[in-house]
Amino acid sequence: MVMTAFREPLELQTFPIPELSDGEVLVRLAASGVCGSDLHIWQGHDPRIALPMIPGHEALGYVADFAGARSYFAGSPIAEGDLIVWDRGVTCGECYYCVQKKCPSLCPNRKVYGITRPCTEPPYLLGGYAEYMVLDPKTKLLKLPPDADPAVLVPATCSGATAAHAIATSGIVEGDTVVQIGVGSLGLFATGLAGGRRPASLIAFDVKPHCLEVARKFGATHTVNVLETTPEERRRMVLDLTDGRGADVVIDASGRPENILEGIALLGRCGTYSLPGIAVPAGEIPVRFYEDINLKNVRIQGVWVSDHVHLQTAIDLVLSGKYPFEELISHRVRLEEANEALEALARGEVLKAVIVPDGD
Amino acid sequence: MVMTAFREPLELQTFPIPELSDGEVLVRLAASGVCGSDLHIWQGHDPRIALPMIPGHEALGYVADFAGARSYFAGSPIAEGDLIVWDRGVTCGECYYCVQKKCPSLCPNRKVYGITRPCTEPPYLLGGYAEYMVLDPKTKLLKLPPDADPAVLVPATCSGATAAHAIATSGIVEGDTVVQIGVGSLGLFATGLAGGRRPASLIAFDVKPHCLEVARKFGATHTVNVLETTPEERRRMVLDLTDGRGADVVIDASGRPENILEGIALLGRCGTYSLPGIAVPAGEIPVRFYEDINLKNVRIQGVWVSDHVHLQTAIDLVLSGKYPFEELISHRVRLEEANEALEALARGEVLKAVIVPDGD
Amino acid sequence: MVMTAFREPLELQTFPIPELSDGEVLVRLAASGVCGSDLHIWQGHDPRIALPMIPGHEALGYVADFAGARSYFAGSPIAEGDLIVWDRGVTCGECYYCVQKKCPSLCPNRKVYGITRPCTEPPYLLGGYAEYMVLDPKTKLLKLPPDADPAVLVPATCSGATAAHAIATSGIVEGDTVVQIGVGSLGLFATGLAGGRRPASLIAFDVKPHCLEVARKFGATHTVNVLETTPEERRRMVLDLTDGRGADVVIDASGRPENILEGIALLGRCGTYSLPGIAVPAGEIPVRFYEDINLKNVRIQGVWVSDHVHLQTAIDLVLSGKYPFEELISHRVRLEEANEALEALARGEVLKAVIVPDGD
Amino acid sequence: MVMTAFREPLELQTFPIPELSDGEVLVRLAASGVCGSDLHIWQGHDPRIALPMIPGHEALGYVADFAGARSYFAGSPIAEGDLIVWDRGVTCGECYYCVQKKCPSLCPNRKVYGITRPCTEPPYLLGGYAEYMVLDPKTKLLKLPPDADPAVLVPATCSGATAAHAIATSGIVEGDTVVQIGVGSLGLFATGLAGGRRPASLIAFDVKPHCLEVARKFGATHTVNVLETTPEERRRMVLDLTDGRGADVVIDASGRPENILEGIALLGRCGTYSLPGIAVPAGEIPVRFYEDINLKNVRIQGVWVSDHVHLQTAIDLVLSGKYPFEELISHRVRLEEANEALEALARGEVLKAVIVPDGD
Repeated sequence: MVMTAFREPLELQTFPIPELSDGEVLVRLAASGVCGSDLHIWQGHDPRIALPMIPGHEALGYVADFAGARSYFAGSPIAEGDLIVWDRGVTCGECYYCVQKKCPSLCPNRKVYGITRPCTEPPYLLGGYAEYMVLDPKTKLLKLPPDADPAVLVPATCSGATAAHAIATSGIVEGDTVVQIGVGSLGLFATGLAGGRRPASLIAFDVKPHCLEVARKFGATHTVNVLETTPEERRRMVLDLTDGRGADVVIDASGRPENILEGIALLGRCGTYSLPGIAVPAGEIPVRFYEDINLKNVRIQGVWVSDHVHLQTAIDLVLSGKYPFEELISHRVRLEEANEALEALARGEVLKAVIVPDGD
Repeated sequence: MVMTAFREPLELQTFPIPELSDGEVLVRLAASGVCGSDLHIWQGHDPRIALPMIPGHEALGYVADFAGARSYFAGSPIAEGDLIVWDRGVTCGECYYCVQKKCPSLCPNRKVYGITRPCTEPPYLLGGYAEYMVLDPKTKLLKLPPDADPAVLVPATCSGATAAHAIATSGIVEGDTVVQIGVGSLGLFATGLAGGRRPASLIAFDVKPHCLEVARKFGATHTVNVLETTPEERRRMVLDLTDGRGADVVIDASGRPENILEGIALLGRCGTYSLPGIAVPAGEIPVRFYEDINLKNVRIQGVWVSDHVHLQTAIDLVLSGKYPFEELISHRVRLEEANEALEALARGEVLKAVIVPDGD
Repeated sequence: MVMTAFREPLELQTFPIPELSDGEVLVRLAASGVCGSDLHIWQGHDPRIALPMIPGHEALGYVADFAGARSYFAGSPIAEGDLIVWDRGVTCGECYYCVQKKCPSLCPNRKVYGITRPCTEPPYLLGGYAEYMVLDPKTKLLKLPPDADPAVLVPATCSGATAAHAIATSGIVEGDTVVQIGVGSLGLFATGLAGGRRPASLIAFDVKPHCLEVARKFGATHTVNVLETTPEERRRMVLDLTDGRGADVVIDASGRPENILEGIALLGRCGTYSLPGIAVPAGEIPVRFYEDINLKNVRIQGVWVSDHVHLQTAIDLVLSGKYPFEELISHRVRLEEANEALEALARGEVLKAVIVPDGD
Repeated sequence: MVMTAFREPLELQTFPIPELSDGEVLVRLAASGVCGSDLHIWQGHDPRIALPMIPGHEALGYVADFAGARSYFAGSPIAEGDLIVWDRGVTCGECYYCVQKKCPSLCPNRKVYGITRPCTEPPYLLGGYAEYMVLDPKTKLLKLPPDADPAVLVPATCSGATAAHAIATSGIVEGDTVVQIGVGSLGLFATGLAGGRRPASLIAFDVKPHCLEVARKFGATHTVNVLETTPEERRRMVLDLTDGRGADVVIDASGRPENILEGIALLGRCGTYSLPGIAVPAGEIPVRFYEDINLKNVRIQGVWVSDHVHLQTAIDLVLSGKYPFEELISHRVRLEEANEALEALARGEVLKAVIVPDGD
């Protein structure tokens, strides 16, 4: 399904399966997510896009073919028929961020399947809204159990990995009080991961009662409906749970700029505000540096995308079987229904839609 | 010298030397700093102040007497005549920040000599604008070499310790590019400490040519006069020194809210902006969270005061003899001249004035 | 129950309840553990002991009285009738390890209830084999829910806290393979805490089938009976689970010197061997530094006792209700039965005996 | 100069300059170190060696030619004539250690120029005892100032980088007491780097008076001749400098197994013993785990080779110009004199010999 123009329906096109170069892997797709960012892309809001291109950066599939020798990072060679997932970002391994800072997610040469890769040249098939994809030699591969449900694993490839990145840099330790703002897909992964670190309290904020219910199953010890409470009531609740101190860590996965100041203000001294949830420009937010950051010795931590380590963490969380990740997948559609899925997403009707070969 | 009313001259008063309780130490003062915050206090801007009180939170002196047994943290007992310095903040050792977070500087029960301690009850002598001070049993003591110049060590007790706190939480590693905004006392300590971590470049910004000259002696590899350059020129300089990436760490010790956004914008991906320099409310600063924090995976780190570890680091830096700290002390005055020193500070005429028993 | 001579029965003696000094707390004991170290003490193997003394360093109880104002670290004041626990180690708050290194568990002035405190002077009641104890003003207090079962919390005060210390310094991250050698009380706490960090595999070794069964309930993904396998089989198993790499972290809580070399050899490159389990001299162990440490870039981490943060973590783990800690308590005895409990422990007949006011 | 048999003179052979594949770089060598490990290799002690091969893993040179586009990690493209250095270890970028642990120096697929690479196939020229070398596409390149003295930079490529690795994992903080055992090349780099972190004391041990003198210039605050003191005198000295506590960090770069136990025993509580200096099997060392590791909460840290980050740190230290690194180079020889240099090294007559195009 090719995006040829912004805000126009994707077109079903046919490409030849390209001859593979050394190290390339041909994947028969098993599941591909329809992400909120795909909507931004389709609306023309993402400056990284060159048309025509095949969207879809959240994908899993089966090894259909490969050229040369390729291995999983565990060292075993890949084999035809393996169910695999991969880091959607392909990084250079040579730049300052890859080599010196060891933060490949910040590589300026990072290329993302389904986002920065047009379909105008071989190997064409570089997005997940398709039957097949071709993976670069530098793509990092992870083998999955053959009986895993590919659709349920889809959110781990993008929001789950980003959540793992946020938790890894959040510094949560045992006994902390954690506020999780927003418990959509990203926020639920963060909740599950944060809970393992044994916080004293893990408080979920959201506007949807259903999401808050699910958050309980992911380990939230308290839930708060933001539509039914005032900011002052929420602040009071956090203070009451912390003997008046405030939260140790706030993870804001709401993606709503209007929540930023409330999130920062919920912190106690020495607290950390982690912001993985902003994926588009949010305008200017007036921050009181003295009262909210300096005087409280607070840390604000921006979190941008993820690397292979975070992908692995998110996949492992789903595979652990401890959380009902299947509840996150509300729609399974066929490839030809991608336009309908995007439209339903735009109307706010879907929690998460996944393209699977045989649809629902 | 007692402050009995805001914006009125301090009054020379006489107190009896109180009988010491178990663990208290009587100190004959050897040097006491006239800090910029003393001016804020005198102007009535610091909400922590109850009058009457003796100002002076930066002080050193000789042990004149003590009750019971007291030891330095190295374990050796204190003795009459020792030249000592102490952590100006006395913390409770029992609260969440002292015990659980091991960040005593954030102790909500922290009491500060010369700031939060009125002189209305025994032991009265709790500020440095005096001949003698009485130190609580919980005050942390540090022994100094008998031949050290007390006046030169004064800045280490406040701005130096805060600089050490900033550097300790800045995450500077070898090869980083560091921008030091503001090279007054705090910024020069930060420059000296940052330089030890072997940054590739250490760039000092200030408005005073003299401070920039001194910064060179403290290890700055580049200096920039902010009055003679545009923000764009400064940004370009940092980009040129980093192959277009931006700074890894910015330490903003300027105390000027108008510098905050420039400082954050100088960062490259994965950078850290450390803010030790804001000691009074700074209003609201409009931050672009998406572009400047999220997308660059940036960390903003507030830094509030310091604890004994940081004091020790700052004192050691001065005692190392590698930097011309004596150049920071522009005026040595007698106790009776404290009002004149405050007035001169208010007029911007002094770099640093220190009260010493025999004046200049 | 007073130890007046080594290897002689403890004697029931009566002491007056002392008048409390400022900050002291009188506790009516609710539960007190009979620890393996009590046996070493009774046998005269612990050089820290001066007789006569009241043993018992693992204890909880109700506030019966107190002098002056005392607060929990959360800031709320203590009250008569509160169920509390405390850090068994009272540290000075002034030494290099308390102040500079912020590792109070290494304080050379650390005094331990029931170990380093004879009963020859007021307040006499400084061990847990008693009806009442008197706590120093510097003792760190933690409030418990009134309906918690004190006996079940006993192991958290010593082995649980030490396990928390081991995990805090082990550096386990998501996806690691962890081997837990020994799953008695210390090892089960470590297993529960390690599991929260989402290791890929968490492999328990022990000689007792029952302990291995319990370890499953605490999160072990694999269990190995050391009596039924050879070292080579165990090594092979770890290699098979890690694609030939070896373990990332080994926590050795077996307390058996003969396991040390096997534990170290199970590590892969960059691995960490954590040793919380050795409480008495273990002789000399021949280490191959080149092959086992240098060439593999391995870290060996000694772990000595614990501080208040670790106690809090262990208590929280029990209170979380997620693990069957009640299964660790095999015997509940009355104070008068302390000798019988020690003898049964010496004969290896008890998993864990706890002294409670009304016995079983 | 080709090693065709162990313990036989190297032979001068001529190879064609191979046609470069995409990404390969041809380097005209400017300096190449004769390392102690070359002697081990020549003696047949290194199991990684397959003959015939060209020794020389410490090398720098000028870009003579390259195929395709290659960039420095700073992003700028390489150019003919650039003076460059490179990470001697070429790692896969795909394995568990490269990707998950971000420790490429532990990559099991690591190939090392001049060590693991025979000269039986194109591109043949994979060692530094030559006029030219060919660098793989995955080799990490670092640009040097054109006027740098290549010979003086040689030690940074191997022992300097390993020293940087040791310091990076040593955890030295301001105020620590550091003992540096062995101040040959590795130890002097470690001394220079440790000094930047502002230890309270930095004590160098060695058997050679000359090395101890040089150590002073690299920042050692105290020096001890091991031949002129007893272990007890050295222990006493460290205790005296630390109020009886012992060292916070010991870096053992002596390469002598017989020093290991002394080094560990010099530590105080919470100390770290870092072992970068053992490059060949050292037999079994009997360690008292209870007294020396457990009870003191000590960390033992093995350090194996280095990665590109450490190379960069070491090169920067030399380029800083603050230390007399030129004093480390005792002999400059021509390529044809490699056998003589190895023999002189075997007789202990050289501090460091470097092969340069025009010899001395």
